[in-house]
Formats: sequence, C-alpha cells, structure tokens
Amino acid sequence: MTHPNEEWLLVRRPDGLARPDDFRLVSSSVRAPGAGEAVIHVMYISVDPATRGWMDSGGNYREPIALDSPVRAGILGEVVESRDAGCPVGTLVTGLGSWSRRVTLPCSILRKIGPAPQVLDPLRYLHPLGIAGLTAHAGLFTVAEFQRGDRLLVSAAAGAVGSLVSQMGRLAGASLVVGVAGGPQKCARVVKEFGCDVCVDHRSPHFRRELKEVLADGFDVFFDNVGGPVLEAALDCMAKKARIAMCGAISGYNKAAPVAGPSNLWNLLVKTARLEGFLVSDFWADASARFAEISTWLDSGQLTSRMDVRSDFHRLPEIFNLLFTGENQGKLVIRLP
Amino acid sequence: MTHPNEEWLLVRRPDGLARPDDFRLVSSSVRAPGAGEAVIHVMYISVDPATRGWMDSGGNYREPIALDSPVRAGILGEVVESRDAGCPVGTLVTGLGSWSRRVTLPCSILRKIGPAPQVLDPLRYLHPLGIAGLTAHAGLFTVAEFQRGDRLLVSAAAGAVGSLVSQMGRLAGASLVVGVAGGPQKCARVVKEFGCDVCVDHRSPHFRRELKEVLADGFDVFFDNVGGPVLEAALDCMAKKARIAMCGAISGYNKAAPVAGPSNLWNLLVKTARLEGFLVSDFWADASARFAEISTWLDSGQLTSRMDVRSDFHRLPEIFNLLFTGENQGKLVIRLP
Repeated sequence: MTHPNEEWLLVRRPDGLARPDDFRLVSSSVRAPGAGEAVIHVMYISVDPATRGWMDSGGNYREPIALDSPVRAGILGEVVESRDAGCPVGTLVTGLGSWSRRVTLPCSILRKIGPAPQVLDPLRYLHPLGIAGLTAHAGLFTVAEFQRGDRLLVSAAAGAVGSLVSQMGRLAGASLVVGVAGGPQKCARVVKEFGCDVCVDHRSPHFRRELKEVLADGFDVFFDNVGGPVLEAALDCMAKKARIAMCGAISGYNKAAPVAGPSNLWNLLVKTARLEGFLVSDFWADASARFAEISTWLDSGQLTSRMDVRSDFHRLPEIFNLLFTGENQGKLVIRLP
Repeated sequence: MTHPNEEWLLVRRPDGLARPDDFRLVSSSVRAPGAGEAVIHVMYISVDPATRGWMDSGGNYREPIALDSPVRAGILGEVVESRDAGCPVGTLVTGLGSWSRRVTLPCSILRKIGPAPQVLDPLRYLHPLGIAGLTAHAGLFTVAEFQRGDRLLVSAAAGAVGSLVSQMGRLAGASLVVGVAGGPQKCARVVKEFGCDVCVDHRSPHFRRELKEVLADGFDVFFDNVGGPVLEAALDCMAKKARIAMCGAISGYNKAAPVAGPSNLWNLLVKTARLEGFLVSDFWADASARFAEISTWLDSGQLTSRMDVRSDFHRLPEIFNLLFTGENQGKLVIRLP
C-alpha cells in the first residue's frame, strides 16, 4: 500500500519568532512500515510551544529537529496499515509524530486509545487526557506537592496547561487561585471558565505591583509556564516554603540569545522555597491513575477543556506562531480531513 | 553588679563593602539582667557573612539591624551574672549576641554547653558543633538529599561552611567532590585538607569551561554558598535530577543594587533539577542527632575544623571585610581577653 503524504520540513532554524520560510511543505509518500510499525492517518496535530525549543540547535531536553526533517509534534490519528498486532488497523492512537498528514511510527511508542469509531470525544486525548493534562496533574500534585488549602498561582492561565492547572487546583481545595494571563479577554475567561478567583494581566504596566497586592499573603504553589519577568515578579510573592513547578518558559522561547535571569533568586533562601523543573516524559509510567481522576472530573462536568481547532494545514507555521503572540483561544490543534 | 562594656554600633547602612565609619565603637555598661536573663562575658565573636545582609534595610530573613544599635553576631561566652536557674554563673553558652565584650540575653535563646572549665575545645561550638556545622549537615543531607555515590559540588569550599560540607560529603560516600574556591592557596587547601578530589578556581578566566570539564558527567548535589556567576556556571553542569541547596549568595552581599540572575535557569527543566533555599534556623529542633554525628567525626579525627582566630576587637569592621575579599583562612572569629 502506498499512502500519499504532505509534510512540513524545517529548512532553517528560526532566529526569534519562526518565519514561514523557515519551513517547506513537501509532497511525498509515507514510509512503508517495518516490523512493529504502523502507518497513521493523522486526524489532529497538536500545536505546542515545546516544538519551538526543538527547532533550535541545542540546549533542550530532546534532540533538535534535524534540518530538512519533518517538524516534530504530537498527533492523534487512526492506524491505516499495521505490522504490529498491538495496534491493528482502525485503532485510534496518539504519540509524537510530525506536521504531516500521515506518519509511520513504531507501535511501541504509541498510546492506543481504542477502536476509532467507539471513541466518543477523541480531542480529549490531545488535551485533558493527553500530554497537557498529565503535565498539569503531575506538576501540580507531585512536583509542587499541592495540598488542600494552598494558595495557587498559575501563569499562562488561559493556555492549554494553565487552564487545566487552575481548575485542578480549585477542584483539589485551593484557598485561592490566582491566574496570570495576557489581556482583558483572557483574564476574563480565566476567572469565568477556569476557576481562578482573580487574574492579573501581565501586560499591565503595574503588573508587578498588582500581583503583590493580590498575593499579599504569598502563594504556596506557583505553576509556571512563562518564566522571564512573570517568574521574577512571582519570586517577590512567595509564602514561606513555597514550591514553584517550572513547566515551561514560553517568554524566552523566541529569544535568539539567553536573557538574564531573575535578580531576586535570593528570595528562595529568605522563604526557604524551591524552584523545580520537570518533564512530563518522566510521568507516563504512572499516568493511568492521573487520567482516571481527570476523566472523573470531565465526565461530571467539573473540568472544562477549551480547544482552538484550526483547519488550515497549509498555514501551519503561521498558526504555530499564535502561541507566542498569545492569539490562540484554547488548546491549539490542526484538524486534518 | 555593673559590667563595663565596649560595643560596635551600626551607625550607617553600608553601600557595598562596609567601611569602618559605618560603625562606631562605644563604651557603655552592659544592661542589668531581667528575670530569665543572663549577662555573658564574651570570649569569642563569630564573624559571618550573614551579618552583612542584616545591615541592609530589608529584603532579608531577619529584621535589619537598627541604626545606632549593636551589630548582631554569634557569640561564645561565659555567664557572669544570671537571673535564670537554667544558666548559672560559669556556664559556657553560645547564641546570637553582638559585636560587644559583654551582652545581656534571655537564657531561653542560649545554647548551654556546660560549665566553662570542663569544656575542652570551646571553639568547636562556633564551627563544626555550631551554626556552620548544622548548616552544612542539614543542607547537604536534608535539603539536597545527598546519597552515597552522589557527585558533590561545593562553592566557597575553603569557607567555614563549605569546608565542612566537602568533608561530610566525602565521609558519607561521595563518588566525587569538586570544590570551588578563590585562588591557588585556597584551592590547594580544599584538596589537601577538606577532602575535595579537585578544586576549580573561580578567579580563572576559564572557570566556566574548567568546571564543565571537571564535571563532565554532571553533579548530583551542589551546595552553593556563593550565587552569581558561580551558580550560573554550575547550572550548566547538572546531572539529571540534580539538587542545589542554596545556603548563601556571598557574591551579591555587597552589591548596592540587585544583579541579574542566571540566564540558564531553563536547565532546571531540561535536567528536572531543583534549586532550594534553606535557613539553618529551621533545623535547630532536630540538631542533636546531627551534632552527635559531627562529634563522632571530630573525635575520630576524620573531620577537620580550620579556624582563623583574630584578636583585635578594635579593628572588627576591617576583619569583617576579610570575608568578602576572601582573605580569611578558615572560620573567622575574634577572641576577646
């Protein structure tokens, strides 16, 4: 069987914000599967900030994407040809694929969700029951050791991960949930839909003062997706023994050169606090209990997943950049026909 | 009973490195003890970097020293008048006193060591069996969760705390102990006396590269007393799951304005590592088991305490600055007659 394909290659490493001509859309045929492999018809491509880091030449937690290779990304799709009994044709799977209409991957690295027609809400598996949900749950409850009654701060609170963290903190008994987001529209959504008591707009000229006012007694847990000036402002708002889970630092992903870090790390000592980085890849092993809890919340309507579904595969690089200009309106995915 | 006294007052907050005229030596009488208090004849004043932070107007973990008040410091001395049965005249005590020949303090905040003539080596209680020893032990074993086989990095490795940390790491089975110190003399001492396998001189123009070469496989634990460029260099040398215990940041104590932080905090995420501040004051409650272990090491000759004992009380401000120019040759104390 041959499967025609279209895929986006990385042809130049972006300098700052990626430009359309850093990529090239090519027509091809998908590689025939070897033993243990499957060909996947991609239904959705997950558009995530982490991909930007992998476009750089190094200093990240995965190998850089090789030039003239497909751009790495999470995908959700259906097996259309298989040489592994573990993922027969018709299985809905997610995994790390690429900006491609079809992709050949080892079955061993795929998450098998079930027979495609029987999966009621497949998009869940790219958000609350996918990497974002696992990241939120593991970062909040395990890395940051969130406890009932804690005061929680979440940056990028309108984002794919942040919106889940805020809601999980609320569901788990936070005494205060403070979101940080960019602009009045996102701030309103964070309060109305994602369970924050209050949202501080990081674009405000008085952001630092406003955050301090809202967190006059300090936060116990900060789930940080942003880094940079937001992290620095937060370091002035810690309660004693505060825990910061460092999930991402999107503010720096498009900087060509490293930028100076926060000048107030000293506060970690004053407050005997900690800053800890984590990677979701370390948490797949015990993911099932976490996903079971998230499913319960979803099924009872207590947890909202807001998606921003786009359909123009041919404009993928531009859609990717919405993450960094803050224009996406929820977990960003590309739907393929 | 009246006790004549001499004490150093802080009369101006230092701007950068303290200057002699930021202080004034005054003659006085020591305050008569109230109920529960004792007058202490000070035998040794502990000269410590933390005191510098308390001279600033805020942003630290203790109240700033009030202007025209005595400079706060650890002391070791003998009770010469008492209104508390718990510390009778003749008891050797340590505690937080000041740059004074005599001081009146509540007995409740004093550590009672024993009848003065029976204490064989009183200076131990200002170093390995005092705050420095407790700091080293708690920071290494509890905050940084040092485990047998770990690769250990220690900054200010020739200093009061660092010299103990290196030795404790060696005694507890480190697979590698790397010290950072300033200048060839200290580097030699760190290797010869304090159990480091190798010492990297932070004054070397190639410091950052040299540290990376020595720690090609990364460190598991970094006990940091220095902050600033040394911390930034270390953040490039972490093994996966590394733990950094942030004990101090002496490189910044004399900076008038906050300086930019490390530009590579991102590495905490890449290595799923953590940076955690701590204060020795949180560890007094369970100090006895730690001191018992340290005593065993001292008594068996496995742990060395190097003191730098000065006797010129009248030049205390200048001697204090030796900590920041790096000229002290061990735990710095002032002996009083």
